[in-house]
Amino acid sequence: MKKISERDVLVPLDVPRAVRDEYIQNYLKITQNSGNLMLFAGDQKIEHLNDDFCGKGIPADDNDPEHLFKIAAGSRIGVFATQLGLIARYGMDYPQLPYLIKMNSKTHLVKTEQEDPYSGQLYDIDQVMEFKDNSGLDILGIGYTIYLGSEYEADMLTEAAQLIYEAHQNGLITVLWIYPRGKAVADEKDSHLIAGATGVGACLNSDFVKVNAPKSKDGTDSAVLLKEAVTAAGRTKVVCAGGSSAATAGFLKELYNQIKIGGVCGNATGRNIHQKPLEEAIRMCNAVYAITVEGADYDAALKIYEGK
Amino acid sequence: MKKISERDVLVPLDVPRAVRDEYIQNYLKITQNSGNLMLFAGDQKIEHLNDDFCGKGIPADDNDPEHLFKIAAGSRIGVFATQLGLIARYGMDYPQLPYLIKMNSKTHLVKTEQEDPYSGQLYDIDQVMEFKDNSGLDILGIGYTIYLGSEYEADMLTEAAQLIYEAHQNGLITVLWIYPRGKAVADEKDSHLIAGATGVGACLNSDFVKVNAPKSKDGTDSAVLLKEAVTAAGRTKVVCAGGSSAATAGFLKELYNQIKIGGVCGNATGRNIHQKPLEEAIRMCNAVYAITVEGADYDAALKIYEGK
Amino acid sequence: MKKISERDVLVPLDVPRAVRDEYIQNYLKITQNSGNLMLFAGDQKIEHLNDDFCGKGIPADDNDPEHLFKIAAGSRIGVFATQLGLIARYGMDYPQLPYLIKMNSKTHLVKTEQEDPYSGQLYDIDQVMEFKDNSGLDILGIGYTIYLGSEYEADMLTEAAQLIYEAHQNGLITVLWIYPRGKAVADEKDSHLIAGATGVGACLNSDFVKVNAPKSKDGTDSAVLLKEAVTAAGRTKVVCAGGSSAATAGFLKELYNQIKIGGVCGNATGRNIHQKPLEEAIRMCNAVYAITVEGADYDAALKIYEGK
Amino acid sequence: MKKISERDVLVPLDVPRAVRDEYIQNYLKITQNSGNLMLFAGDQKIEHLNDDFCGKGIPADDNDPEHLFKIAAGSRIGVFATQLGLIARYGMDYPQLPYLIKMNSKTHLVKTEQEDPYSGQLYDIDQVMEFKDNSGLDILGIGYTIYLGSEYEADMLTEAAQLIYEAHQNGLITVLWIYPRGKAVADEKDSHLIAGATGVGACLNSDFVKVNAPKSKDGTDSAVLLKEAVTAAGRTKVVCAGGSSAATAGFLKELYNQIKIGGVCGNATGRNIHQKPLEEAIRMCNAVYAITVEGADYDAALKIYEGK
Amino acid sequence: MKKISERDVLVPLDVPRAVRDEYIQNYLKITQNSGNLMLFAGDQKIEHLNDDFCGKGIPADDNDPEHLFKIAAGSRIGVFATQLGLIARYGMDYPQLPYLIKMNSKTHLVKTEQEDPYSGQLYDIDQVMEFKDNSGLDILGIGYTIYLGSEYEADMLTEAAQLIYEAHQNGLITVLWIYPRGKAVADEKDSHLIAGATGVGACLNSDFVKVNAPKSKDGTDSAVLLKEAVTAAGRTKVVCAGGSSAATAGFLKELYNQIKIGGVCGNATGRNIHQKPLEEAIRMCNAVYAITVEGADYDAALKIYEGK
Repeated sequence: MKKISERDVLVPLDVPRAVRDEYIQNYLKITQNSGNLMLFAGDQKIEHLNDDFCGKGIPADDNDPEHLFKIAAGSRIGVFATQLGLIARYGMDYPQLPYLIKMNSKTHLVKTEQEDPYSGQLYDIDQVMEFKDNSGLDILGIGYTIYLGSEYEADMLTEAAQLIYEAHQNGLITVLWIYPRGKAVADEKDSHLIAGATGVGACLNSDFVKVNAPKSKDGTDSAVLLKEAVTAAGRTKVVCAGGSSAATAGFLKELYNQIKIGGVCGNATGRNIHQKPLEEAIRMCNAVYAITVEGADYDAALKIYEGK
Repeated sequence: MKKISERDVLVPLDVPRAVRDEYIQNYLKITQNSGNLMLFAGDQKIEHLNDDFCGKGIPADDNDPEHLFKIAAGSRIGVFATQLGLIARYGMDYPQLPYLIKMNSKTHLVKTEQEDPYSGQLYDIDQVMEFKDNSGLDILGIGYTIYLGSEYEADMLTEAAQLIYEAHQNGLITVLWIYPRGKAVADEKDSHLIAGATGVGACLNSDFVKVNAPKSKDGTDSAVLLKEAVTAAGRTKVVCAGGSSAATAGFLKELYNQIKIGGVCGNATGRNIHQKPLEEAIRMCNAVYAITVEGADYDAALKIYEGK
Repeated sequence: MKKISERDVLVPLDVPRAVRDEYIQNYLKITQNSGNLMLFAGDQKIEHLNDDFCGKGIPADDNDPEHLFKIAAGSRIGVFATQLGLIARYGMDYPQLPYLIKMNSKTHLVKTEQEDPYSGQLYDIDQVMEFKDNSGLDILGIGYTIYLGSEYEADMLTEAAQLIYEAHQNGLITVLWIYPRGKAVADEKDSHLIAGATGVGACLNSDFVKVNAPKSKDGTDSAVLLKEAVTAAGRTKVVCAGGSSAATAGFLKELYNQIKIGGVCGNATGRNIHQKPLEEAIRMCNAVYAITVEGADYDAALKIYEGK
Repeated sequence: MKKISERDVLVPLDVPRAVRDEYIQNYLKITQNSGNLMLFAGDQKIEHLNDDFCGKGIPADDNDPEHLFKIAAGSRIGVFATQLGLIARYGMDYPQLPYLIKMNSKTHLVKTEQEDPYSGQLYDIDQVMEFKDNSGLDILGIGYTIYLGSEYEADMLTEAAQLIYEAHQNGLITVLWIYPRGKAVADEKDSHLIAGATGVGACLNSDFVKVNAPKSKDGTDSAVLLKEAVTAAGRTKVVCAGGSSAATAGFLKELYNQIKIGGVCGNATGRNIHQKPLEEAIRMCNAVYAITVEGADYDAALKIYEGK
Repeated sequence: MKKISERDVLVPLDVPRAVRDEYIQNYLKITQNSGNLMLFAGDQKIEHLNDDFCGKGIPADDNDPEHLFKIAAGSRIGVFATQLGLIARYGMDYPQLPYLIKMNSKTHLVKTEQEDPYSGQLYDIDQVMEFKDNSGLDILGIGYTIYLGSEYEADMLTEAAQLIYEAHQNGLITVLWIYPRGKAVADEKDSHLIAGATGVGACLNSDFVKVNAPKSKDGTDSAVLLKEAVTAAGRTKVVCAGGSSAATAGFLKELYNQIKIGGVCGNATGRNIHQKPLEEAIRMCNAVYAITVEGADYDAALKIYEGK
């Protein structure tokens, strides 16, 4: 896979001249000089409470939040995304990790039938920068979730626009999680709707936009369906959410196709990595990284996972 | 068509003396010294998600956001209106374009039957000016949408009044999109109601107010019906929304009549331009410009569109 | 009619010592040294959209917002009340007028059955003062509407209290429009309820409070019924809203009685003035002024209106 | 009745050292060196509109807001509580009165069945202090109403906590009106619930908490029932609301018992004073004062009222 | 029980370097150098009104708020948690106590069936620090309640995140009370859900998280069920709420098991302590302290309670 260099990084025009270099370095680091993003997603302790960390089929390791840090430290990743709180409690023992702070989170207790979803901003960018400075950690960017089509859409669009603007003022990279959700949304995984979501990400000036892979309704391959979203996003890069835990071989194949066929430039994987015992999780992480960042093909990645 | 000069520009009294010249220059630029406004509307990626950019009858070009910039760069326009995010990602390659930043946007997912419409402000004017300064781009003005008659009308009236006041403090030109919409609105295209909308635009001190063309209920020509709205707007100038894609000849004729008969001073056209392959879109753009800014008649404009 | 002088002006104690003179001069100007207020109300372009300006029985002149300014300039008035936006667009041609800025406004599209009324503040007093300074116009005061008994009453009481406090800090005169309205209000024109409204105006420290004239239920003259409200207002002065267009002779008589019998100290008249061709409107304005400010009796005023 | 001195005043620990003396002097003044509070309540012009001031059985005097000031000036009181607006308009003629500013108010138009009650803050403490300084008036404290059990309870608890904190920062004395009210409240005058209310007043750090006297359900004397509330309030002092107009002899007896048996340290009386012609009102005021502040017994007070 | 020293205190990375020592000292004090937290909870006067302080089976002592301070002063505790207001009124007589300020509170009047719970922030951290400085009291930390699964969850998550961040900026220790509650919550004491709650506490960066002990559905010991929550909380320490009054022996046994079996590091006990006459309450407090902080076993603690 071709390496990118400083000249290849498109710097959005809201990044002040004085922090252009900072932005470029953060971009290169987060993509590991590949232009592609492998995001290890670890924000589920609020989003899904303990359902993703303890239960049938989940190894005991996963219930300890440090499991996430151990995986991140033991494998190759682009960035580890989680809430500021966890970083504040484990970062002193994992000072070398590349971090992305997830700026909003909600639990899954209130369902859409009861109330449309809203996830509120927990910190502002001044606090993120203060935290970065005080902790000395390598905080490369921030993330924020928008539920498009929710009755609270306006609140989230405004918070996202503001966070991205302020993040760029400080040279940080931004990732929007955009999920169509709410009483008004009939099919959250419709490919045309997801293309709308990535277009919103572009209009909001995010560097990356994370969406769910579309679900085919007529047998068309999901990766093929992704193309509309990738084009609609323009210069904003699309990454696919890993979704719920799946059989590894199929998961890696899907990932490979999303990049090679769908044209996305990365993925955000959580449960498919951390719901495994530490060593297996590390191998899985490395396999995902190989496909995403190093251009490995599916077979090579599977071998990495299998430890061969 | 007669050219206007600096003396012809009415400067509203909230524009500080120190920025009067800036305001006048922006006004002359945005109307290309004609006093009329040809606004190329490109804010639909949030407003209509991907419905306007990908689908039956829409050329593949249109799915790439850069299509909008290519059209704007290849043709004659008054101003290109879109969200700050897209400008931040493409502006470095299109530094010569005249830009207008659309300050609020919502998707069309939640319908009025479910909830009255509200479109929230994404940035403040300080950020717009900071962005203008940092990017070096020619940002001439800002736009904002009000849904009159929505249960959230009060929020939008206040945001609009504030944005216009602050925009004028910085010499920027303002365009209000005003659409009557909500459970309380029986007929969004009633000519008398639209005249109310343009009057609101005047009371809010906007330089331009964009409304939908009225729909006749008794056979009266829509352009004739527009006269009430144009007079009611006083010194605020009325521009007509282009609406959904229509057959070109009819569209240009309508445009011509809106100006010559209805007395509006311009139009805001989006889909009728960008839902065409690049070259045809450019010719269309030039045809619209010829009518609006250069005083061309309908036949001359049609020939421009036909490339004759 | 006796003239009042500086010594007769009661200066409320929230007016800082340094601006007492400014307040007194504004008070004398707005009452034309009479202590009585003739307010020419021109805020209906938002409040009633175009219904008051174009339609059956309304002369074509009235559709142009400048009609309001021409009337104000051609006749004798205490103050011309309208939104900042209109003043900003016509003030350069009418620099000699005494202005009052209406600080909030709503349309009449959403009816009380659907949602209780709320009218939101459009500007703050710092902006009003900045506008006054920049424009050089003679802005004497501000107005604000409260819908008493609305579910949003608390928001409006707070905004009103704040606006009056800040207006007084700058020596401006204040007028509250107080209308009982909402699902909880059975009879908006009950005289006892209107007396409650003027009392609220007093507790909020307004200089003037504008209410609708009570509607009699037992044949008692409306002007007689007003007395309760005038007393209840204490040192806050009551002015009556002109209401919808009525036959002129009857209207002037009513006005005369409101002052002579009811004891109010003025009126706020809009439609009964501007829904007339310019010259007739000017004569009407002068007739209203004669009764209100000059102490003319009903017959004298009618002659002024009739141009005799 | 024993006099208290500076040493007897408990200064809460949020009062800064620099304003301790100011707080102590305000406390001694408001209790007239008795430790007990006789609050003359005159905030009903918003709370009850004109119902308390004009109607059957109410003397004509009472419709004029100055009636309240005349009573306060002619009799002995601890403090006169009303809205800032009335004080700003009459204070120049009544500069010697001790004032307490009621910081929030609502009308009684919207009933609990329609919407739970909320009464919003009208000013902030900086404005109160600025007003005190500018007017030169003797403003000793502030009041605020909380409707406990309303769906808007959280808003009022926060506003109250903030107002008290800021008032204490400036040495002002605070009185909370706490009334359980809302769809969730079955019995507003339950003695155990009222004890809860006084406890809330203590937790919010108010100097005084004003509650309604409990209504007995089993024949126990209301004054006896008050004891729970007085103890539960700890070092926050309880005063009883005077309630609606009652026969004078009974009212004074009740008052006496509330203090002697119930242990409250004062009362807030409005309608039972001002719904009387001036001279009678003054005698009544003095009778209430005698019981509350001077330790008079019931017979002595009745004689004062009867002018004997 | 092993003592911890400064080296054993994990300082979260949002604590500025300049206040690390302050944080460490506060942590050692609040845990009495044990790492375990015995929190004497006295915030129920708002939370439960007077139900916890006066009624059948509650000694008369408990109705006086000073009872809480007397207990705290007479026994050994980690920290006494209550509202700022009570501390401000009794702190001058109890200057030696270790305090924690409960930052939000609501009454129990509005039930979940009527409206999902929200408890609003009463003060900000600047005020807490100003109060600490002015009072000279030993304020070691702050507490805040989140109702997870409430429709107002987003408001509380944001307030909690902000309070913790700002508390840490000032070296204060934080305790979150997290209770799943709302129409969406079927079983508030489900052990897996409670583990979700402690995980949220970790993501929000709280030093301690207080939860209810799970209720067993299949006979598994509640203390055993707690283990999931303790692990899920990672480096955030779990303390168990004492809940409603229970027989002492059973209560102490439960407490012992929660620590020894469940692995929690402390408890927050209120009613089981203060709903006793002073001397018994003090013995109970010391018994709880012995188990929590001194590592006493169940029998030793019971003897302390029994005064043997």
